[in-house]
Amino acid sequence: MVGNLLGERLVMISFGESHGKVVGVVIDGVPAGLPLSERDIQKIVDLRRPASEISTSRREADKVEILSGVYKGKTTGAPLAMMVRNVDVDSRPYELIEKGWARPGHADYTAYMKYGGYNDPRGGGRFSARITVGFVMAGALALKLLSHTLNIEVIGYVKEIAGIKAPELSIEELRKRYENDVRCPHPETARRMKEAILKAKEEGDSVGGVVECIALNVPVGLGEPIFSSLDSDLARALFSIPAVKGVEFGAGFLSAKLRGSENNDPMAIKSGKIVTLTNKAGGILGGISNGMPLVVRVAFKPPSSIAKPQKTVNFKEMKEGKIVVPGRHDPCVVHRAVPIVESLVAFVLADHALRAGFIPPVLE
Amino acid sequence: MVGNLLGERLVMISFGESHGKVVGVVIDGVPAGLPLSERDIQKIVDLRRPASEISTSRREADKVEILSGVYKGKTTGAPLAMMVRNVDVDSRPYELIEKGWARPGHADYTAYMKYGGYNDPRGGGRFSARITVGFVMAGALALKLLSHTLNIEVIGYVKEIAGIKAPELSIEELRKRYENDVRCPHPETARRMKEAILKAKEEGDSVGGVVECIALNVPVGLGEPIFSSLDSDLARALFSIPAVKGVEFGAGFLSAKLRGSENNDPMAIKSGKIVTLTNKAGGILGGISNGMPLVVRVAFKPPSSIAKPQKTVNFKEMKEGKIVVPGRHDPCVVHRAVPIVESLVAFVLADHALRAGFIPPVLE
Amino acid sequence: MVGNLLGERLVMISFGESHGKVVGVVIDGVPAGLPLSERDIQKIVDLRRPASEISTSRREADKVEILSGVYKGKTTGAPLAMMVRNVDVDSRPYELIEKGWARPGHADYTAYMKYGGYNDPRGGGRFSARITVGFVMAGALALKLLSHTLNIEVIGYVKEIAGIKAPELSIEELRKRYENDVRCPHPETARRMKEAILKAKEEGDSVGGVVECIALNVPVGLGEPIFSSLDSDLARALFSIPAVKGVEFGAGFLSAKLRGSENNDPMAIKSGKIVTLTNKAGGILGGISNGMPLVVRVAFKPPSSIAKPQKTVNFKEMKEGKIVVPGRHDPCVVHRAVPIVESLVAFVLADHALRAGFIPPVLE
Amino acid sequence: MVGNLLGERLVMISFGESHGKVVGVVIDGVPAGLPLSERDIQKIVDLRRPASEISTSRREADKVEILSGVYKGKTTGAPLAMMVRNVDVDSRPYELIEKGWARPGHADYTAYMKYGGYNDPRGGGRFSARITVGFVMAGALALKLLSHTLNIEVIGYVKEIAGIKAPELSIEELRKRYENDVRCPHPETARRMKEAILKAKEEGDSVGGVVECIALNVPVGLGEPIFSSLDSDLARALFSIPAVKGVEFGAGFLSAKLRGSENNDPMAIKSGKIVTLTNKAGGILGGISNGMPLVVRVAFKPPSSIAKPQKTVNFKEMKEGKIVVPGRHDPCVVHRAVPIVESLVAFVLADHALRAGFIPPVLE
Repeated sequence: MVGNLLGERLVMISFGESHGKVVGVVIDGVPAGLPLSERDIQKIVDLRRPASEISTSRREADKVEILSGVYKGKTTGAPLAMMVRNVDVDSRPYELIEKGWARPGHADYTAYMKYGGYNDPRGGGRFSARITVGFVMAGALALKLLSHTLNIEVIGYVKEIAGIKAPELSIEELRKRYENDVRCPHPETARRMKEAILKAKEEGDSVGGVVECIALNVPVGLGEPIFSSLDSDLARALFSIPAVKGVEFGAGFLSAKLRGSENNDPMAIKSGKIVTLTNKAGGILGGISNGMPLVVRVAFKPPSSIAKPQKTVNFKEMKEGKIVVPGRHDPCVVHRAVPIVESLVAFVLADHALRAGFIPPVLE
Repeated sequence: MVGNLLGERLVMISFGESHGKVVGVVIDGVPAGLPLSERDIQKIVDLRRPASEISTSRREADKVEILSGVYKGKTTGAPLAMMVRNVDVDSRPYELIEKGWARPGHADYTAYMKYGGYNDPRGGGRFSARITVGFVMAGALALKLLSHTLNIEVIGYVKEIAGIKAPELSIEELRKRYENDVRCPHPETARRMKEAILKAKEEGDSVGGVVECIALNVPVGLGEPIFSSLDSDLARALFSIPAVKGVEFGAGFLSAKLRGSENNDPMAIKSGKIVTLTNKAGGILGGISNGMPLVVRVAFKPPSSIAKPQKTVNFKEMKEGKIVVPGRHDPCVVHRAVPIVESLVAFVLADHALRAGFIPPVLE
Repeated sequence: MVGNLLGERLVMISFGESHGKVVGVVIDGVPAGLPLSERDIQKIVDLRRPASEISTSRREADKVEILSGVYKGKTTGAPLAMMVRNVDVDSRPYELIEKGWARPGHADYTAYMKYGGYNDPRGGGRFSARITVGFVMAGALALKLLSHTLNIEVIGYVKEIAGIKAPELSIEELRKRYENDVRCPHPETARRMKEAILKAKEEGDSVGGVVECIALNVPVGLGEPIFSSLDSDLARALFSIPAVKGVEFGAGFLSAKLRGSENNDPMAIKSGKIVTLTNKAGGILGGISNGMPLVVRVAFKPPSSIAKPQKTVNFKEMKEGKIVVPGRHDPCVVHRAVPIVESLVAFVLADHALRAGFIPPVLE
Repeated sequence: MVGNLLGERLVMISFGESHGKVVGVVIDGVPAGLPLSERDIQKIVDLRRPASEISTSRREADKVEILSGVYKGKTTGAPLAMMVRNVDVDSRPYELIEKGWARPGHADYTAYMKYGGYNDPRGGGRFSARITVGFVMAGALALKLLSHTLNIEVIGYVKEIAGIKAPELSIEELRKRYENDVRCPHPETARRMKEAILKAKEEGDSVGGVVECIALNVPVGLGEPIFSSLDSDLARALFSIPAVKGVEFGAGFLSAKLRGSENNDPMAIKSGKIVTLTNKAGGILGGISNGMPLVVRVAFKPPSSIAKPQKTVNFKEMKEGKIVVPGRHDPCVVHRAVPIVESLVAFVLADHALRAGFIPPVLE
């Protein structure tokens, strides 16, 4: 199978480029009978749009168009094709890349080598985070499907930016993540994170951070060991987001420092249901969901596009030089990544729920 | 596609159970013409075998049998089937699980739910780390293929156990990882790690740690964005190893704390080759290998089987209770995981090298 | 994997409905560097359009729009999305189906059962031959790719309609297949076929036939035994065309009546190349191309939409009745199927040429 | 995905060679809870074994060994690995192929080209019909699964050999197909077919024929349009059987000669169930099963190994010559193909029944 596909029974194929005509997605395997409108998709896509001074100044309407797969307000079981048109495009800054100057931290050089120089370099082409609009359109479908059938709720939020960490928060608090532009539901922390972002921006620099994503009401039994275990498939999807450098579940890297007696989650029965008293496992045991909240954390590097001069090379002329990266950029992508992480988590969960028969091919 | 398959152009299907007749693997897509003997496989499988008091007392010969796919000492292009027979099996301790008692941290309960109680519980069945013998047989093939065609070298080693970290080491030092039973090539650190493992064992407990794996001579251009990016596919494979809770590339989670100006790797030309002066990216940019050493770290939780009494449930009778996990177990799996991590990294690299045409379907 | 995908290294996903907004296709795995314009696609799509009184009176412009994957006139290695908009839509005749009346020979009832009544019934929805516009857009890409890289030529033509068979023709003659609207390159036979079609049309009936497709210059070695043998994959693709009921290679069903001494193709050397003196095998031995012309024949049933009253059922009300199928229809689809068969044969060959390394991922 | 895999949710991977150690298969996606013993598999495998003078004199015990996936007499949901060992091997006759002499009609030359001469040529290696033992082991599992869950019955039989055709027979009669060695349940026709086979054998020649396969009780709704339509997937599987040159459903190639008014199956309601009054469609409409008996016919060429001298080439020395094919061979494979066709039809139906949710992942 080829690189732009994700999923087995719910499959998305991503298409489009940062400065091309459109960004889109086709989803196959959508169960028939799900109520779905362009508004359902639009409202999630809107969460991803840059909204304030901590994001790029590129302003795209991102107006969603459903091209196929819906009839009389419901999914038909046929492929669902969706796209947005690119409007606010300014490709002049990318002439430098066309000339062979690599932006450190970007895929300019690797893409040039892989595609023999034929790839569209404008705005990073396929390597732009703009491509994730397609992920989010697919995620909007998946979120609605999960909520409609299994009452699954997926909540991502900014856990850390520039080393500033959010404290432990309740589910109630987490649900308010979209109430500020930092997507960190602890207002005081959000304020400090925003300051850090703006300071970096001012200095022509950028900052990274961590998104945590929690899924509630996941039934016991999702995941297909060994190689399509739930963590395997989630990790594969999450590492497809530009700028992701690490993924961990539950206690994650901290587990490596614990003893078994500290890391094992004791089990108990509550309201007739088997639960664990702690959740170091992050909701997955043996690659299969165990009914506890799924907890995954995703590390984002700071955006590679910075205003400071950097040592680099020209890969066409094979010479060294300095670059000041032109264009409009995000000083931080962590907050904008929240709906993207939610989307991919939801998509993988929906795919696995279909595989395991928790969601039928035709909805009532 | 189903859960026990990994890969696209080089595909393995894992089979067998911990206490069943055999553990095996079938690999399809193997290029024709690679010299291959049972000895080639055996020598890597032997690296995985428990060898000292820091591992389980179960002693398996793990004698590799190649069933198909080799003729006159070379691969034929046909599926390569391999297996080892299970010999030293003692299933009595697993009667507890059959009765419904879940071992905290294990997949007993999730497997029971997923397979309706039909799964083989003896020794953990398909969820036992014993299954990874098949991964290592496949890895041995992949390692030989990579070395034979592209001179790629894959070096894993124990970076951390029980919070004790190895210092930065040279490639020369790392190559000596198999000279001690802890697989940490820094003898003084290895000695301290071993002490920590034995202390935990003595106390009926277990410890976790981190394996770092480096691949040298990876050509520029491996990885199929977006969803089969090199990091995506590596992470998917690595999360299939039992006990893995986190995966990161290059600077990984540390990147989230850095600024762009610190995290970007400046580029330069050395001996006519484009390089980066640091390697925070871990050898991957935009999901594609950039020619620098591939660096991935894998966090292992402490083994869930401990001698201490733990609070748990009986999922058949739906009642709470305590368990002291019976059976022979590893107080730490990190050192034994080294050849497993190497195997999966090699397998994914070989698959991608075939996809990208760096390895032809027929070798000279 | 899901139902609307075809291929492994060159993959298409089909989307759109007969009376929906669009019909389209996304192709992933396209090698970078192939010169490609909308005109290249349009000219093949135009061959599929109804053009005379032997086809439906529905008139669609079928104006091709390339949405992504091409930059500066060449493919980029990114997904190639293409679509045409539906314009000449008249959905009134399909109210009968919405009410539950099944058209005999159509998928109304099976689609209703499979998709729980949510499928778009207008014009047959996804089951309309209109969907094949997407196949042909993908085929146009594949044809150009094969011709550009391997000089492969794919020639389909009408071999039989309504029991009237074309005589053996030379390759030179076959190349003229598009010179008449019957797509049978023997003018006298074409004339008689047309008469038979018009007679059936006049009588409110329809006729079937056979398309033969020949591919020249196929290199030795395409096909991945056992289950992705070249004939397996071609047959799978060809049975996806609506109305196809049989597929045979070389001597096909006739082989079943021959003796080995008659059916075996004697081998010889001509101009330094291994050939067979006959071609009963149709260019495939052991599932692998043997360098001789690939020959496949595809049987099309007569269109199910006829003007005569037919005994049928109402599947919503579970009652019997009679139907006179409304709407605009083709009295024969065989001639229109020629570019569709060529397209799918080309697509499968291109996919296999990529798998086997005959076409590189980046073109010179 | 690679060539030796078949299926999506029920997947088999075939391994082994004609004169290697074993022939085997691994099946993943098997639902948990199906009663299964080696005897269940053995009894179907035994139907495939040569049994009389109309088959090869090679005599293999074909003793089935289940290696994994069954516990306490039931499937566990884990991969089911099975194999038989090759015993009666005489590879001397194949020295000719090793020297470069191609047997006309065989894959010697194409395999040599595809695998660079590294393929195992003994007994045809992977291209031998012996490989189908693996298909039949997988088929035995699928047949049991279909019968256990959906009461589906799959009946293949010899429809035609050497131009001699069986008359129309009732289902009751067809069920007796294994009562004679020709597998044609019409004794008088079977007698004449056997004569024809023996006559061809006597003359050093071989004969071909047609297997028809019928599946009863297939529910409405199997098949995933467009490219995994039920006919597409069945045809793909059936063309993987060595010697198959044609596949047709229902009226098949005859449909091409009929008018719509003759070919459409009128619909009616019988005992509260929607049926068609004829079955020209062969149980499939729009790529989806319609609840009527599935009817497929498969054309087998005469075996290519004949005792008569044939014109051929030496592909290593690039010279022409004559060959008298040595070894032990079948003068006809049609009768032996009956359980193979049944097996693949059953396997594809079981895969689709799992995909569509008609068979759950865990059986009661």
